[in-house]
Amino acid sequence: MQAEIISVGTELLLGQIVDTNAVYLAKALSAAGIPVYRRVTVGDNHQRLRAVLEEAFKESELVFTIGGLGPTSDDITRDVLAEVLGDPLRFDEEVARWLREFFARRGVPLVESNLRQAWVPSRGRILPNPNGTAPGLLFEATDGTRMAIALPGPPSEFLPMVDRHVVPLLHQWGGGAVIHSRTVRLCGIGESLVEHYVMDLVVSTNPTVAPYAKTGEVHLRVTARAQGQAEAEQLVSAMVQRIAERLGRYIYGYDEDTLEESVVRLLTAQQLRIATAESCTGGMLAARITNVPGSSHVFQGGVVAYSNEAKTRLVGVDEELIRSHGAVSEEVAEALAFEVRARFGTELGVGITGIAGPEGGTPEKPVGLVYIALAHRGGVKVQRNEFLGSRNDVRTRAVLTALVMVREYALEAKAHGEEVMRH
Amino acid sequence: MQAEIISVGTELLLGQIVDTNAVYLAKALSAAGIPVYRRVTVGDNHQRLRAVLEEAFKESELVFTIGGLGPTSDDITRDVLAEVLGDPLRFDEEVARWLREFFARRGVPLVESNLRQAWVPSRGRILPNPNGTAPGLLFEATDGTRMAIALPGPPSEFLPMVDRHVVPLLHQWGGGAVIHSRTVRLCGIGESLVEHYVMDLVVSTNPTVAPYAKTGEVHLRVTARAQGQAEAEQLVSAMVQRIAERLGRYIYGYDEDTLEESVVRLLTAQQLRIATAESCTGGMLAARITNVPGSSHVFQGGVVAYSNEAKTRLVGVDEELIRSHGAVSEEVAEALAFEVRARFGTELGVGITGIAGPEGGTPEKPVGLVYIALAHRGGVKVQRNEFLGSRNDVRTRAVLTALVMVREYALEAKAHGEEVMRH
Repeated sequence: MQAEIISVGTELLLGQIVDTNAVYLAKALSAAGIPVYRRVTVGDNHQRLRAVLEEAFKESELVFTIGGLGPTSDDITRDVLAEVLGDPLRFDEEVARWLREFFARRGVPLVESNLRQAWVPSRGRILPNPNGTAPGLLFEATDGTRMAIALPGPPSEFLPMVDRHVVPLLHQWGGGAVIHSRTVRLCGIGESLVEHYVMDLVVSTNPTVAPYAKTGEVHLRVTARAQGQAEAEQLVSAMVQRIAERLGRYIYGYDEDTLEESVVRLLTAQQLRIATAESCTGGMLAARITNVPGSSHVFQGGVVAYSNEAKTRLVGVDEELIRSHGAVSEEVAEALAFEVRARFGTELGVGITGIAGPEGGTPEKPVGLVYIALAHRGGVKVQRNEFLGSRNDVRTRAVLTALVMVREYALEAKAHGEEVMRH
Repeated sequence: MQAEIISVGTELLLGQIVDTNAVYLAKALSAAGIPVYRRVTVGDNHQRLRAVLEEAFKESELVFTIGGLGPTSDDITRDVLAEVLGDPLRFDEEVARWLREFFARRGVPLVESNLRQAWVPSRGRILPNPNGTAPGLLFEATDGTRMAIALPGPPSEFLPMVDRHVVPLLHQWGGGAVIHSRTVRLCGIGESLVEHYVMDLVVSTNPTVAPYAKTGEVHLRVTARAQGQAEAEQLVSAMVQRIAERLGRYIYGYDEDTLEESVVRLLTAQQLRIATAESCTGGMLAARITNVPGSSHVFQGGVVAYSNEAKTRLVGVDEELIRSHGAVSEEVAEALAFEVRARFGTELGVGITGIAGPEGGTPEKPVGLVYIALAHRGGVKVQRNEFLGSRNDVRTRAVLTALVMVREYALEAKAHGEEVMRH
């Protein structure tokens, strides 16, 4: 069995609403082991919806529609489905009674058009809607080979209906087949280099391994299909293991883990406290670290040293250093890291200075130039970067790079600690 | 002319990513008066993408694809498009040179697969990508009746390419009916109250007025349809005018304006410089302010005073004050604001202290309790808040509230200045 999801609504085509419903349903189908062949969005237009439905049933036995079940004249979904599947509508007295009560309870007058929602498929069945007036409708073709489930568009009605009525049906139909997937999250390495290392794994068909690039990160999604959950999980974890053997150093986490969580975890384990002095990132690094619950054990504080005065007076960077090298320089990044470490009495200090743009660039110091320094017990390490993109991109990449530098230092400290333990 | 948008990516079908790119492109097409017939999402599968493209070209002359232009073997879009439109790929030496330089600048080794991105259509053309390695590709059928534009998937590459290269083409091709829309952005007022004030406008059909609630903000989207751009704009601006008459005080901006832009604009105009001392928001307020280009004229710097030591040593809060009232208290918020204003010598100082959670709450001081103080020429103003939601929600709401407080102070200063001018 495979499925298709059709979202109905001109507002979706115009881009006025983000279709989170279809995303939710797609996840539910995957979890039940029913592959989604295609997702389509079409406007509130009878002919077009009909064409899209006919196309869908060429490939899939199960088609979901989302939206177009309201009481108004542009709510066409139920009519078109009845036509395409030859499952004519009948007026359901019980739904009508429920609608009358629904409106009476709210003290809202029921207009005639509201009763359109009491028309339901003759052969199929109804999925109750406790949060609105449109019941979900299951249509069936005469020969029983094709089915459509029409769900209401408002998320407050759609989501509970999927959870309570659709998911149980899916698990019944999915017949035990399960799709399980896990995301391996890497940083400090580019997408093509990742693929280079796992080339032979990417061609695997079960589980599949798919690389995705995100700003400054690469994700590998491992997805397996099996008859049972345990088998699917086993297939995935064996593949994740193979990836970890090759790229372990770059893996900072799995699934919904964030880089900052991984960094806070490592620093906590290594008992390394940290302080930050940020210029062009303006507090973003501190904000990301402190979004991790429990970060107060390692993060002591930071200075947003936006003006030169703040760099000298609050962090203690030598004025002369700024004058001779410029605020955006290796020397000032080093001094920021070194001084902020001293001020907060931490094991690590990070200093960031750069030109986020869009203004302020020169031929020697272009927009995107960012120096990132890490001061530690043994000295200061500084990295020169030229980031591309918008002001926000430059800042985001700078923060990611700083987190990667801290992570690598903590990993070395950990390896060194283990080395010492062994002797 | 009508268009279809095809998003390519198994991760989209599985519901692992929300497709905001397609939404953005749909908006751009609407704005140019080019109707979108359909939107389709399909996995990284050669046969399926081919089938979807052929189906699309039955109805539309212009088809957009999003994603699948990367260097890896599951990036199939360029091959399939070349096939379907009969516009074979050729190796472009200039793109290849640019790719080599791109990698060299970053000191990253270029692997052979990266050069896949130098294959471009023979008849069509290239849309430059300053933020990544995949150029956009325009394919043309031999007879010139059909066209496809292939755009890269990462939003940081996709969005600027749409703005700079696609929108100008759309306006050239569009012509005729136009959909124009404007978003009125409000803060410091709840959604139901906004709706109460504009109830009679929300029923309008052209332009339409649709309210949307966001964390701590309310947006009203005004959309008009007309034969020409001027007429559509006139319809929208008349409606925006009516909304402004009723809710003007709460409007901080329009369309893509952010609250922090509005605040930086107001502070710049009133010559008010600002410094921040943040505890639970950990630098988020500073990060938001400094994301505004030109914020350096008003933002002097800030301290992320996460530990008590940082509050006393770096900001200068009295140790005794923290001991007697607790770090999360009205008194400490006031002291943070007052002292940071003094340290940076600014007109305004903001102090934030609170419990972001998930741990650390007590019956008297629950998770979500945040004190926000604003120190100014005339004294200190402090606000006690109890925010609901996750750690991130509490922090985000605290930052919004602080921005609203600063905005209101600057508005009063402006009104006062105008008052003085009048006398």
